[in-house]
Amino acid sequence: MLGTASAMPVPDRNPSAQALSVHGRYFLVDCGEGAQRSMVRFGVPLQRIDTVFISHVHGDHVYGLDGFLSTLAMGGRLAPLDIYGPRNLGPMLKFFLSYNEWIGFELRFHPLEMKAPEVILETKSLEVLALPLKHGVETYGFIFREKEPQWNVDKDAIEKYGFTLTEIGTLKRGEDVIREDGSRIPLSEVAYKPFVPRSYAYMSDTAVFPEEAAWLKGVDVLYHEATFLSEYADQAEKRKHSTTLQAAQVALEAGVRKLIIAHYSSRSVDASLYEAECRSVFPETFAASDGDVFEI
Amino acid sequence: MLGTASAMPVPDRNPSAQALSVHGRYFLVDCGEGAQRSMVRFGVPLQRIDTVFISHVHGDHVYGLDGFLSTLAMGGRLAPLDIYGPRNLGPMLKFFLSYNEWIGFELRFHPLEMKAPEVILETKSLEVLALPLKHGVETYGFIFREKEPQWNVDKDAIEKYGFTLTEIGTLKRGEDVIREDGSRIPLSEVAYKPFVPRSYAYMSDTAVFPEEAAWLKGVDVLYHEATFLSEYADQAEKRKHSTTLQAAQVALEAGVRKLIIAHYSSRSVDASLYEAECRSVFPETFAASDGDVFEI
Repeated sequence: MLGTASAMPVPDRNPSAQALSVHGRYFLVDCGEGAQRSMVRFGVPLQRIDTVFISHVHGDHVYGLDGFLSTLAMGGRLAPLDIYGPRNLGPMLKFFLSYNEWIGFELRFHPLEMKAPEVILETKSLEVLALPLKHGVETYGFIFREKEPQWNVDKDAIEKYGFTLTEIGTLKRGEDVIREDGSRIPLSEVAYKPFVPRSYAYMSDTAVFPEEAAWLKGVDVLYHEATFLSEYADQAEKRKHSTTLQAAQVALEAGVRKLIIAHYSSRSVDASLYEAECRSVFPETFAASDGDVFEI
Repeated sequence: MLGTASAMPVPDRNPSAQALSVHGRYFLVDCGEGAQRSMVRFGVPLQRIDTVFISHVHGDHVYGLDGFLSTLAMGGRLAPLDIYGPRNLGPMLKFFLSYNEWIGFELRFHPLEMKAPEVILETKSLEVLALPLKHGVETYGFIFREKEPQWNVDKDAIEKYGFTLTEIGTLKRGEDVIREDGSRIPLSEVAYKPFVPRSYAYMSDTAVFPEEAAWLKGVDVLYHEATFLSEYADQAEKRKHSTTLQAAQVALEAGVRKLIIAHYSSRSVDASLYEAECRSVFPETFAASDGDVFEI
Protein backbone atom coordinates (compact mmCIF):
# COMPACT_ATOMS: atom_id res chain seq x y z
CA MET A 1 0.00 0.00 0.00
CA LEU A 2 1.94 3.00 -1.29
CA GLY A 3 -0.82 5.50 -0.70
CA THR A 4 -4.10 5.30 1.18
CA ALA A 5 -5.32 8.91 1.22
CA SER A 6 -7.88 10.56 -1.01
CA ALA A 7 -7.34 13.80 -2.90
CA MET A 8 -6.77 16.38 -0.14
CA PRO A 9 -3.22 16.19 1.25
CA VAL A 10 -2.80 14.78 4.76
CA PRO A 11 0.43 14.42 6.74
CA ASP A 12 0.68 10.66 7.12
CA ARG A 13 -0.78 9.21 3.96
CA ASN A 14 0.10 9.49 0.32
CA PRO A 15 -2.65 9.54 -2.32
CA SER A 16 -3.62 6.32 -4.12
CA ALA A 17 -0.97 3.89 -5.29
CA GLN A 18 -0.32 0.20 -4.80
CA ALA A 19 2.41 -2.19 -5.81
CA LEU A 20 1.44 -5.76 -6.59
CA SER A 21 3.99 -8.53 -6.74
CA VAL A 22 2.93 -11.59 -8.74
CA HIS A 23 5.31 -14.50 -9.41
CA GLY A 24 8.34 -12.22 -9.32
CA ARG A 25 6.78 -9.48 -11.47
CA TYR A 26 5.93 -6.07 -10.07
CA PHE A 27 2.88 -4.08 -11.09
CA LEU A 28 2.08 -0.53 -10.12
CA VAL A 29 -1.62 0.18 -9.66
CA ASP A 30 -2.41 3.88 -9.75
CA CYS A 31 0.30 6.43 -9.11
CA GLY A 32 -0.75 9.37 -6.96
CA GLU A 33 1.72 12.15 -6.21
CA GLY A 34 4.60 10.85 -4.11
CA ALA A 35 4.20 7.18 -5.09
CA GLN A 36 7.86 6.89 -6.06
CA ARG A 37 8.96 8.13 -2.65
CA SER A 38 6.67 5.56 -1.00
CA MET A 39 8.27 2.85 -3.13
CA VAL A 40 11.70 3.82 -1.91
CA ARG A 41 10.51 4.14 1.67
CA PHE A 42 8.76 0.78 1.71
CA GLY A 43 11.28 -1.19 -0.33
CA VAL A 44 9.42 -1.72 -3.59
CA PRO A 45 12.04 -2.26 -6.32
CA LEU A 46 10.96 0.62 -8.53
CA GLN A 47 13.02 -0.38 -11.56
CA ARG A 48 11.50 -3.87 -11.60
CA ILE A 49 8.00 -2.59 -12.25
CA ASP A 50 7.13 -3.60 -15.79
CA THR A 51 3.47 -2.67 -16.03
CA VAL A 52 1.40 0.22 -14.70
CA PHE A 53 -2.38 0.24 -14.38
CA ILE A 54 -4.05 3.63 -14.02
CA SER A 55 -7.71 3.70 -13.01
CA HIS A 56 -8.51 7.29 -13.98
CA VAL A 57 -6.90 10.67 -14.52
CA HIS A 58 -7.86 12.40 -11.29
CA GLY A 59 -4.72 13.89 -9.77
CA ASP A 60 -4.68 11.76 -6.64
CA HIS A 61 -4.33 8.68 -8.86
CA VAL A 62 -1.99 9.91 -11.55
CA TYR A 63 0.09 12.96 -10.53
CA GLY A 64 2.95 10.76 -9.37
CA LEU A 65 3.40 9.25 -12.81
CA ASP A 66 5.65 11.95 -14.33
CA GLY A 67 8.05 11.73 -11.39
CA PHE A 68 8.04 7.94 -11.46
CA LEU A 69 8.77 7.83 -15.19
CA SER A 70 11.55 10.42 -14.82
CA THR A 71 13.15 8.39 -12.07
CA LEU A 72 13.03 5.21 -14.16
CA ALA A 73 14.75 7.10 -16.97
CA MET A 74 17.38 8.70 -14.70
CA GLY A 75 18.13 5.22 -13.39
CA GLY A 76 19.12 4.22 -16.92
CA ARG A 77 16.12 2.06 -17.68
CA LEU A 78 16.04 0.52 -21.13
CA ALA A 79 13.27 -2.07 -20.69
CA PRO A 80 9.90 -0.97 -22.08
CA LEU A 81 7.11 -0.05 -19.71
CA ASP A 82 3.49 -0.93 -20.40
CA ILE A 83 0.82 1.45 -19.16
CA TYR A 84 -2.87 0.59 -19.17
CA GLY A 85 -5.39 3.32 -18.51
CA PRO A 86 -8.34 5.25 -19.86
CA ARG A 87 -7.95 6.96 -23.23
CA ASN A 88 -7.58 10.41 -21.68
CA LEU A 89 -4.34 9.26 -20.06
CA GLY A 90 -2.79 9.18 -23.54
CA PRO A 91 -2.36 12.96 -23.97
CA MET A 92 -0.77 13.16 -20.51
CA LEU A 93 1.89 10.62 -21.45
CA LYS A 94 2.42 12.35 -24.77
CA PHE A 95 2.85 15.71 -23.03
CA PHE A 96 5.31 14.18 -20.57
CA LEU A 97 7.34 12.76 -23.45
CA SER A 98 7.39 16.13 -25.21
CA TYR A 99 9.38 17.48 -22.23
CA ASN A 100 11.44 14.31 -21.78
CA GLU A 101 12.58 13.20 -25.20
CA TRP A 102 15.79 11.91 -23.66
CA ILE A 103 14.22 8.93 -21.89
CA GLY A 104 15.81 5.67 -22.91
CA PHE A 105 12.89 3.28 -22.74
CA GLU A 106 9.73 2.73 -24.71
CA LEU A 107 6.46 3.77 -23.12
CA ARG A 108 3.73 1.50 -24.46
CA PHE A 109 0.30 2.90 -23.77
CA HIS A 110 -2.72 0.61 -23.93
CA PRO A 111 -5.91 2.68 -23.88
CA LEU A 112 -8.88 1.04 -22.18
CA GLU A 113 -12.43 1.26 -23.45
CA MET A 114 -15.00 -1.28 -22.31
CA LYS A 115 -18.51 -1.53 -20.90
CA ALA A 116 -18.04 -4.83 -19.05
CA PRO A 117 -15.08 -6.79 -17.62
CA GLU A 118 -12.54 -7.74 -20.28
CA VAL A 119 -9.16 -9.47 -20.19
CA ILE A 120 -6.55 -6.84 -21.03
CA LEU A 121 -3.37 -8.78 -20.26
CA GLU A 122 -2.72 -12.51 -20.27
CA THR A 123 0.44 -14.41 -19.43
CA LYS A 124 1.14 -18.10 -18.83
CA SER A 125 0.22 -17.80 -15.19
CA LEU A 126 -1.96 -14.73 -14.88
CA GLU A 127 -4.73 -12.72 -16.41
CA VAL A 128 -5.68 -9.15 -15.73
CA LEU A 129 -9.18 -7.84 -16.36
CA ALA A 130 -10.32 -4.25 -16.51
CA LEU A 131 -13.88 -3.30 -15.61
CA PRO A 132 -15.70 0.02 -15.91
CA LEU A 133 -16.46 1.80 -12.65
CA LYS A 134 -18.93 4.58 -11.87
CA HIS A 135 -17.13 7.82 -11.13
CA GLY A 136 -16.98 11.43 -12.31
CA VAL A 137 -14.60 10.63 -15.15
CA GLU A 138 -13.94 7.43 -17.12
CA THR A 139 -12.60 5.02 -14.50
CA TYR A 140 -11.60 1.37 -14.50
CA GLY A 141 -11.07 -1.25 -11.83
CA PHE A 142 -8.72 -4.18 -12.28
CA ILE A 143 -8.87 -7.87 -11.35
CA PHE A 144 -5.59 -9.79 -11.16
CA ARG A 145 -6.26 -13.51 -11.41
CA GLU A 146 -3.83 -16.39 -11.30
CA LYS A 147 -4.55 -19.11 -13.79
CA GLU A 148 -5.05 -22.70 -12.67
CA PRO A 149 -1.46 -23.99 -12.29
CA GLN A 150 -0.18 -27.15 -13.97
CA TRP A 151 0.14 -30.27 -11.83
CA ASN A 152 3.58 -30.82 -10.32
CA VAL A 153 4.81 -34.40 -10.28
CA ASP A 154 6.21 -35.55 -6.93
CA LYS A 155 9.97 -36.15 -7.16
CA ASP A 156 9.89 -39.34 -5.10
CA ALA A 157 7.14 -40.69 -7.35
CA ILE A 158 9.23 -40.03 -10.47
CA GLU A 159 11.94 -42.24 -9.01
CA LYS A 160 9.56 -44.87 -7.68
CA TYR A 161 7.62 -45.29 -10.96
CA GLY A 162 10.44 -44.34 -13.35
CA PHE A 163 8.14 -41.99 -15.31
CA THR A 164 9.13 -41.24 -18.89
CA LEU A 165 9.03 -37.64 -20.15
CA THR A 166 5.83 -38.48 -22.02
CA GLU A 167 4.24 -39.79 -18.83
CA ILE A 168 5.30 -36.67 -16.92
CA GLY A 169 3.67 -34.59 -19.65
CA THR A 170 0.46 -36.60 -19.25
CA LEU A 171 0.46 -35.97 -15.48
CA LYS A 172 1.20 -32.25 -15.87
CA ARG A 173 -1.88 -31.98 -18.08
CA GLY A 174 -3.90 -33.52 -15.23
CA GLU A 175 -4.43 -37.06 -16.55
CA ASP A 176 -3.76 -40.48 -14.98
CA VAL A 177 -0.94 -42.52 -16.48
CA ILE A 178 -2.09 -45.72 -18.16
CA ARG A 179 0.76 -48.05 -19.06
CA GLU A 180 0.95 -50.60 -21.88
CA ASP A 181 0.26 -53.44 -19.42
CA GLY A 182 -3.08 -51.74 -18.60
CA SER A 183 -2.00 -50.61 -15.14
CA ARG A 184 -3.21 -47.14 -14.10
CA ILE A 185 -1.23 -44.77 -11.91
CA PRO A 186 -3.71 -42.21 -10.56
CA LEU A 187 -2.78 -38.54 -10.90
CA SER A 188 -3.81 -37.73 -7.33
CA GLU A 189 -1.32 -40.27 -5.96
CA VAL A 190 1.81 -38.88 -7.70
CA ALA A 191 1.12 -35.21 -8.45
CA TYR A 192 -0.11 -32.07 -6.70
CA LYS A 193 -1.19 -28.54 -7.45
CA PRO A 194 1.51 -26.10 -6.24
CA PHE A 195 -1.09 -23.51 -5.30
CA VAL A 196 -4.75 -22.68 -5.47
CA PRO A 197 -5.20 -19.76 -7.90
CA ARG A 198 -5.59 -16.45 -6.11
CA SER A 199 -7.17 -13.24 -7.23
CA TYR A 200 -7.10 -9.60 -6.22
CA ALA A 201 -9.45 -6.85 -7.28
CA TYR A 202 -8.65 -3.14 -7.20
CA MET A 203 -11.81 -1.07 -7.12
CA SER A 204 -10.57 2.47 -7.38
CA ASP A 205 -12.82 5.49 -6.98
CA THR A 206 -16.38 4.42 -7.61
CA ALA A 207 -19.95 4.69 -6.47
CA VAL A 208 -21.48 1.25 -6.00
CA PHE A 209 -23.43 -0.05 -8.99
CA PRO A 210 -25.78 -3.01 -9.61
CA GLU A 211 -23.40 -5.32 -11.51
CA GLU A 212 -20.50 -4.76 -9.12
CA ALA A 213 -20.85 -7.76 -6.78
CA ALA A 214 -21.51 -10.14 -9.67
CA TRP A 215 -18.38 -8.94 -11.48
CA LEU A 216 -16.33 -9.55 -8.32
CA LYS A 217 -17.53 -13.14 -7.72
CA GLY A 218 -14.60 -15.46 -7.08
CA VAL A 219 -12.23 -12.71 -6.00
CA ASP A 220 -10.19 -13.61 -2.91
CA VAL A 221 -9.06 -10.21 -1.73
CA LEU A 222 -10.97 -7.10 -2.67
CA TYR A 223 -9.62 -3.59 -2.38
CA HIS A 224 -12.56 -1.22 -2.45
CA GLU A 225 -12.45 2.49 -1.83
CA ALA A 226 -14.45 3.63 1.19
CA THR A 227 -14.07 7.37 0.96
CA PHE A 228 -16.85 8.30 3.33
CA LEU A 229 -18.13 7.21 6.72
CA SER A 230 -21.79 6.20 6.49
CA GLU A 231 -23.03 9.50 7.92
CA TYR A 232 -21.74 11.21 4.75
CA ALA A 233 -23.76 9.03 2.36
CA ASP A 234 -25.07 12.18 0.65
CA GLN A 235 -21.50 13.31 -0.09
CA ALA A 236 -20.62 9.85 -1.40
CA GLU A 237 -23.54 9.94 -3.81
CA LYS A 238 -22.81 13.48 -4.93
CA ARG A 239 -19.11 12.82 -5.55
CA LYS A 240 -19.56 9.29 -6.93
CA HIS A 241 -17.68 7.57 -4.16
CA SER A 242 -18.60 4.75 -1.76
CA THR A 243 -19.33 4.74 1.94
CA THR A 244 -17.89 2.16 4.32
CA LEU A 245 -21.21 0.31 4.49
CA GLN A 246 -21.60 0.23 0.72
CA ALA A 247 -18.08 -1.17 0.23
CA ALA A 248 -18.68 -3.80 2.91
CA GLN A 249 -22.00 -4.77 1.33
CA VAL A 250 -20.27 -5.31 -2.03
CA ALA A 251 -17.66 -7.53 -0.33
CA LEU A 252 -20.44 -9.52 1.34
CA GLU A 253 -22.49 -10.00 -1.83
CA ALA A 254 -19.43 -10.88 -3.93
CA GLY A 255 -18.40 -13.48 -1.33
CA VAL A 256 -14.77 -12.37 -1.13
CA ARG A 257 -12.50 -13.58 1.65
CA LYS A 258 -11.09 -10.27 2.70
CA LEU A 259 -11.86 -6.59 2.15
CA ILE A 260 -9.18 -3.90 2.21
CA ILE A 261 -10.34 -0.31 2.34
CA ALA A 262 -8.62 3.07 1.97
CA HIS A 263 -9.01 6.45 0.19
CA TYR A 264 -10.36 8.00 3.39
CA SER A 265 -11.83 11.47 3.12
CA SER A 266 -9.72 14.17 4.73
CA ARG A 267 -12.80 15.03 6.82
CA SER A 268 -11.87 12.14 9.06
CA VAL A 269 -8.53 10.39 8.72
CA ASP A 270 -8.93 7.95 11.61
CA ALA A 271 -8.93 4.70 9.64
CA SER A 272 -10.18 2.69 12.61
CA LEU A 273 -13.56 4.41 12.32
CA TYR A 274 -13.90 3.28 8.72
CA GLU A 275 -12.80 -0.23 9.62
CA ALA A 276 -15.30 -0.51 12.48
CA GLU A 277 -18.19 0.55 10.24
CA CYS A 278 -17.24 -1.96 7.54
CA ARG A 279 -16.83 -4.76 10.06
CA SER A 280 -20.39 -4.32 11.23
CA VAL A 281 -21.36 -5.71 7.80
CA PHE A 282 -18.23 -7.63 6.73
CA PRO A 283 -15.96 -8.68 9.62
CA GLU A 284 -12.93 -9.50 7.48
CA THR A 285 -12.29 -5.84 6.67
CA PHE A 286 -8.87 -4.22 7.03
CA ALA A 287 -8.34 -0.48 6.86
CA ALA A 288 -5.02 0.01 5.08
CA SER A 289 -2.30 2.48 5.96
CA ASP A 290 0.71 3.43 3.88
CA GLY A 291 3.34 0.72 4.04
CA ASP A 292 0.93 -2.11 4.88
CA VAL A 293 1.64 -5.37 3.09
CA PHE A 294 -1.13 -7.86 2.37
CA GLU A 295 -0.41 -11.39 1.26
CA ILE A 296 -3.12 -12.84 -0.92
CA MET B 1 11.98 23.91 3.95
CA LEU B 2 9.33 21.76 2.28
CA GLY B 3 11.77 19.62 0.35
CA THR B 4 15.54 19.25 0.52
CA ALA B 5 16.23 16.27 -1.78
CA SER B 6 17.42 16.27 -5.36
CA ALA B 7 15.78 14.36 -8.18
CA MET B 8 16.09 10.71 -7.13
CA PRO B 9 13.49 9.76 -4.51
CA VAL B 10 14.72 9.18 -0.96
CA PRO B 11 12.68 8.10 2.06
CA ASP B 12 13.04 11.12 4.34
CA ARG B 13 13.24 14.12 2.05
CA ASN B 14 10.89 15.60 -0.49
CA PRO B 15 12.27 17.17 -3.66
CA SER B 16 12.79 20.95 -3.82
CA ALA B 17 10.19 23.31 -2.41
CA GLN B 18 10.27 26.16 0.08
CA ALA B 19 7.65 28.40 1.62
CA LEU B 20 8.63 31.97 2.41
CA SER B 21 6.58 34.13 4.73
CA VAL B 22 7.09 37.88 4.31
CA HIS B 23 5.00 40.43 6.22
CA GLY B 24 2.03 38.09 6.40
CA ARG B 25 2.22 36.98 2.77
CA TYR B 26 3.16 33.45 1.77
CA PHE B 27 5.26 32.62 -1.27
CA LEU B 28 5.97 29.17 -2.63
CA VAL B 29 9.42 28.77 -4.16
CA ASP B 30 9.64 25.71 -6.40
CA CYS B 31 7.17 22.88 -6.07
CA GLY B 32 8.65 19.42 -6.31
CA GLU B 33 6.42 16.36 -6.12
CA GLY B 34 4.83 16.10 -2.68
CA ALA B 35 5.24 19.79 -1.76
CA GLN B 36 1.57 20.10 -0.82
CA ARG B 37 1.84 17.20 1.59
CA SER B 38 4.89 18.84 3.19
CA MET B 39 2.89 22.05 3.59
CA VAL B 40 0.17 20.19 5.45
CA ARG B 41 2.70 18.28 7.52
CA PHE B 42 4.69 21.37 8.50
CA GLY B 43 1.80 23.77 8.98
CA VAL B 44 2.20 26.07 5.99
CA PRO B 45 -1.23 27.59 5.25
CA LEU B 46 -1.52 26.34 1.69
CA GLN B 47 -4.51 28.46 0.73
CA ARG B 48 -2.76 31.66 1.81
CA ILE B 49 -0.01 31.30 -0.76
CA ASP B 50 -0.59 34.04 -3.32
CA THR B 51 2.51 33.79 -5.49
CA VAL B 52 4.59 30.89 -6.77
CA PHE B 53 8.13 31.15 -8.10
CA ILE B 54 9.40 28.25 -10.22
CA SER B 55 13.11 28.11 -10.98
CA HIS B 56 12.99 25.60 -13.86
CA VAL B 57 10.93 22.78 -15.27
CA HIS B 58 12.94 19.80 -14.08
CA GLY B 59 10.55 17.40 -12.37
CA ASP B 60 12.06 17.67 -8.91
CA HIS B 61 11.19 21.38 -8.90
CA VAL B 62 7.81 21.39 -10.60
CA TYR B 63 6.01 18.02 -10.50
CA GLY B 64 4.16 18.99 -7.32
CA LEU B 65 2.51 21.95 -9.01
CA ASP B 66 -0.46 20.12 -10.57
CA GLY B 67 -1.39 18.58 -7.25
CA PHE B 68 -0.96 21.86 -5.39
CA LEU B 69 -3.15 23.72 -7.89
CA SER B 70 -5.81 20.99 -7.74
CA THR B 71 -5.88 21.18 -3.97
CA LEU B 72 -6.26 24.97 -4.03
CA ALA B 73 -9.19 24.54 -6.40
CA MET B 74 -10.81 21.74 -4.38
CA GLY B 75 -10.54 23.97 -1.35
CA GLY B 76 -12.79 26.46 -3.12
CA ARG B 77 -10.14 29.07 -3.86
CA LEU B 78 -11.33 32.12 -5.73
CA ALA B 79 -8.33 34.45 -5.26
CA PRO B 80 -6.00 34.61 -8.27
CA LEU B 81 -2.60 32.94 -8.09
CA ASP B 82 0.48 34.47 -9.68
CA ILE B 83 3.12 32.12 -11.03
CA TYR B 84 6.55 33.30 -12.13
CA GLY B 85 8.77 30.91 -14.02
CA PRO B 86 10.67 30.27 -17.24
CA ARG B 87 8.72 30.45 -20.50
CA ASN B 88 8.61 26.66 -20.89
CA LEU B 89 6.48 26.45 -17.74
CA GLY B 90 3.65 28.08 -19.71
CA PRO B 91 2.65 24.99 -21.74
CA MET B 92 2.63 22.91 -18.54
CA LEU B 93 0.14 25.25 -16.90
CA LYS B 94 -1.93 25.35 -20.06
CA PHE B 95 -1.98 21.55 -20.23
CA PHE B 96 -2.99 21.36 -16.58
CA LEU B 97 -5.86 23.77 -17.22
CA SER B 98 -7.03 21.75 -20.21
CA TYR B 99 -7.74 18.86 -17.80
CA ASN B 100 -9.04 21.13 -15.02
CA GLU B 101 -11.36 23.65 -16.61
CA TRP B 102 -13.48 23.62 -13.45
CA ILE B 103 -10.98 25.47 -11.27
CA GLY B 104 -12.47 28.61 -9.78
CA PHE B 105 -9.47 30.93 -9.64
CA GLU B 106 -7.37 32.74 -12.16
CA LEU B 107 -3.86 31.44 -12.84
CA ARG B 108 -1.70 34.39 -13.86
CA PHE B 109 1.51 33.23 -15.47
CA HIS B 110 4.44 35.63 -15.70
CA PRO B 111 7.10 34.21 -18.01
CA LEU B 112 10.68 35.11 -17.14
CA GLU B 113 13.33 35.98 -19.69
CA MET B 114 16.42 37.89 -18.62
CA LYS B 115 20.20 37.81 -18.86
CA ALA B 116 20.92 39.67 -15.61
CA PRO B 117 19.06 40.30 -12.32
CA GLU B 118 15.77 42.14 -12.83
CA VAL B 119 12.99 43.18 -10.49
CA ILE B 120 9.98 41.04 -11.37
CA LEU B 121 7.65 41.95 -8.50
CA GLU B 122 7.48 45.07 -6.38
CA THR B 123 5.21 45.91 -3.48
CA LYS B 124 5.23 48.70 -0.90
CA SER B 125 7.56 46.76 1.35
CA LEU B 126 9.30 44.22 -0.85
CA GLU B 127 10.93 43.58 -4.17
CA VAL B 128 11.65 40.26 -5.83
CA LEU B 129 14.40 39.87 -8.41
CA ALA B 130 14.95 36.99 -10.79
CA LEU B 131 18.43 36.15 -12.04
CA PRO B 132 19.55 33.67 -14.69
CA LEU B 133 21.38 30.58 -13.40
CA LYS B 134 23.59 28.11 -15.20
CA HIS B 135 21.89 24.75 -15.51
CA GLY B 136 20.86 22.21 -18.15
CA VAL B 137 17.62 24.04 -18.91
CA GLU B 138 16.58 27.69 -18.56
CA THR B 139 16.75 28.30 -14.81
CA TYR B 140 16.27 31.33 -12.57
CA GLY B 141 17.19 32.16 -9.01
CA PHE B 142 15.25 34.65 -6.91
CA ILE B 143 16.20 37.36 -4.44
CA PHE B 144 13.56 38.55 -1.99
CA ARG B 145 14.50 41.93 -0.60
CA GLU B 146 12.67 44.07 1.91
CA LYS B 147 12.61 47.76 1.08
CA GLU B 148 13.94 50.33 3.50
CA PRO B 149 11.00 50.83 5.88
CA GLN B 150 9.50 54.23 6.66
CA TRP B 151 10.41 55.86 9.99
CA ASN B 152 7.94 55.16 12.77
CA VAL B 153 7.24 58.09 15.10
CA ASP B 154 7.44 57.26 18.77
CA LYS B 155 4.00 57.45 20.43
CA ASP B 156 5.23 59.20 23.55
CA ALA B 157 6.98 61.79 21.39
CA ILE B 158 3.75 62.51 19.50
CA GLU B 159 2.12 63.38 22.82
CA LYS B 160 5.10 65.28 24.18
CA TYR B 161 5.57 67.49 21.10
CA GLY B 162 1.94 67.51 19.93
CA PHE B 163 2.98 66.74 16.32
CA THR B 164 0.57 67.75 13.59
CA LEU B 165 -0.25 65.29 10.80
CA THR B 166 1.99 67.30 8.49
CA GLU B 167 4.86 67.04 10.94
CA ILE B 168 4.35 63.27 11.30
CA GLY B 169 4.50 62.99 7.51
CA THR B 170 7.78 64.92 7.53
CA LEU B 171 9.25 62.54 10.11
CA LYS B 172 8.03 59.43 8.25
CA ARG B 173 9.88 60.69 5.17
CA GLY B 174 13.03 60.83 7.31
CA GLU B 175 13.35 64.56 7.85
CA ASP B 176 13.74 66.65 11.01
CA VAL B 177 10.81 68.83 12.01
CA ILE B 178 11.52 72.56 11.84
CA ARG B 179 8.82 74.68 13.46
CA GLU B 180 7.79 78.26 12.63
CA ASP B 181 9.72 79.57 15.64
CA GLY B 182 12.88 78.09 14.08
CA SER B 183 13.22 75.29 16.62
CA ARG B 184 14.36 71.94 15.25
CA ILE B 185 13.18 68.54 16.52
CA PRO B 186 15.71 65.96 15.30
CA LEU B 187 14.32 62.85 13.61
CA SER B 188 16.61 60.52 15.53
CA GLU B 189 15.15 61.72 18.83
CA VAL B 190 11.48 61.04 18.08
CA ALA B 191 11.41 58.32 15.39
CA TYR B 192 12.93 54.93 14.72
CA LYS B 193 13.22 52.34 11.94
CA PRO B 194 11.00 49.32 12.75
CA PHE B 195 13.47 46.91 11.14
CA VAL B 196 16.64 46.70 9.12
CA PRO B 197 15.73 45.46 5.61
CA ARG B 198 16.44 41.77 5.18
CA SER B 199 17.00 39.73 2.07
CA TYR B 200 16.93 36.10 1.07
CA ALA B 201 18.30 34.54 -2.10
CA TYR B 202 17.17 31.21 -3.54
CA MET B 203 19.82 29.78 -5.83
CA SER B 204 18.16 26.71 -7.28
CA ASP B 205 20.01 24.19 -9.42
CA THR B 206 23.10 25.83 -10.84
CA ALA B 207 26.75 25.44 -11.57
CA VAL B 208 28.71 28.35 -10.13
CA PHE B 209 29.40 31.19 -12.58
CA PRO B 210 31.58 34.31 -12.53
CA GLU B 211 28.92 36.96 -11.85
CA GLU B 212 27.27 34.96 -9.11
CA ALA B 213 28.90 36.41 -5.97
CA ALA B 214 28.56 39.97 -7.27
CA TRP B 215 24.87 39.46 -7.95
CA LEU B 216 24.38 38.20 -4.39
CA LYS B 217 26.12 41.11 -2.64
CA GLY B 218 24.04 42.44 0.21
CA VAL B 219 22.01 39.25 0.65
CA ASP B 220 21.58 38.26 4.30
CA VAL B 221 20.64 34.63 3.97
CA LEU B 222 21.61 32.63 0.91
CA TYR B 223 20.09 29.31 -0.04
CA HIS B 224 22.44 27.66 -2.51
CA GLU B 225 22.16 24.15 -3.84
CA ALA B 226 25.07 21.89 -2.94
CA THR B 227 24.21 18.75 -4.82
CA PHE B 228 27.60 17.09 -4.63
CA LEU B 229 30.27 16.52 -2.05
CA SER B 230 33.59 17.91 -3.23
CA GLU B 231 34.91 14.52 -4.31
CA TYR B 232 32.23 14.47 -7.04
CA ALA B 233 33.32 17.77 -8.62
CA ASP B 234 33.42 16.07 -12.02
CA GLN B 235 29.77 15.04 -11.66
CA ALA B 236 28.86 18.57 -10.57
CA GLU B 237 30.46 20.03 -13.67
CA LYS B 238 28.91 17.46 -15.99
CA ARG B 239 25.41 17.90 -14.58
CA LYS B 240 25.65 21.67 -14.06
CA HIS B 241 25.32 21.56 -10.31
CA SER B 242 27.47 22.88 -7.46
CA THR B 243 29.65 21.15 -4.94
CA THR B 244 29.66 22.00 -1.25
CA LEU B 245 32.93 23.91 -1.57
CA GLN B 246 31.73 25.89 -4.56
CA ALA B 247 28.53 26.93 -2.77
CA ALA B 248 30.50 27.93 0.33
CA GLN B 249 32.93 29.93 -1.78
CA VAL B 250 30.05 31.88 -3.34
CA ALA B 251 28.67 32.63 0.14
CA LEU B 252 32.09 33.84 1.26
CA GLU B 253 32.69 36.06 -1.77
CA ALA B 254 29.18 37.50 -1.67
CA GLY B 255 29.62 38.30 2.02
CA VAL B 256 26.28 36.85 3.14
CA ARG B 257 25.54 36.25 6.81
CA LYS B 258 24.30 32.70 6.54
CA LEU B 259 24.35 29.91 3.97
CA ILE B 260 21.63 27.26 3.78
CA ILE B 261 22.31 24.23 1.60
CA ALA B 262 20.21 21.31 0.36
CA HIS B 263 19.42 19.33 -2.84
CA TYR B 264 21.78 16.56 -1.73
CA SER B 265 22.59 13.90 -4.30
CA SER B 266 21.04 10.53 -3.55
CA ARG B 267 24.59 9.10 -3.65
CA SER B 268 25.00 10.36 -0.13
CA VAL B 269 22.04 11.63 1.87
CA ASP B 270 23.90 12.34 5.12
CA ALA B 271 23.46 16.12 5.24
CA SER B 272 26.06 16.50 7.99
CA LEU B 273 28.79 15.57 5.51
CA TYR B 274 27.73 18.38 3.19
CA GLU B 275 27.53 20.81 6.08
CA ALA B 276 31.00 19.93 7.36
CA GLU B 277 32.56 20.47 3.93
CA CYS B 278 30.88 23.85 3.52
CA ARG B 279 31.89 24.97 7.02
CA SER B 280 35.54 24.42 6.20
CA VAL B 281 35.12 27.43 3.89
CA PHE B 282 32.10 29.24 5.31
CA PRO B 283 31.40 28.46 8.98
CA GLU B 284 27.84 29.86 9.03
CA THR B 285 26.50 27.05 6.86
CA PHE B 286 23.40 25.09 7.75
CA ALA B 287 22.40 21.89 5.96
CA ALA B 288 18.62 21.97 5.73
CA SER B 289 16.23 19.09 6.31
CA ASP B 290 12.53 18.95 5.50
CA GLY B 291 10.55 20.89 8.07
CA ASP B 292 13.40 23.17 9.12
CA VAL B 293 12.41 26.80 9.67
CA PHE B 294 14.91 29.60 9.22
CA GLU B 295 14.23 33.11 10.44
CA ILE B 296 15.92 35.77 8.38
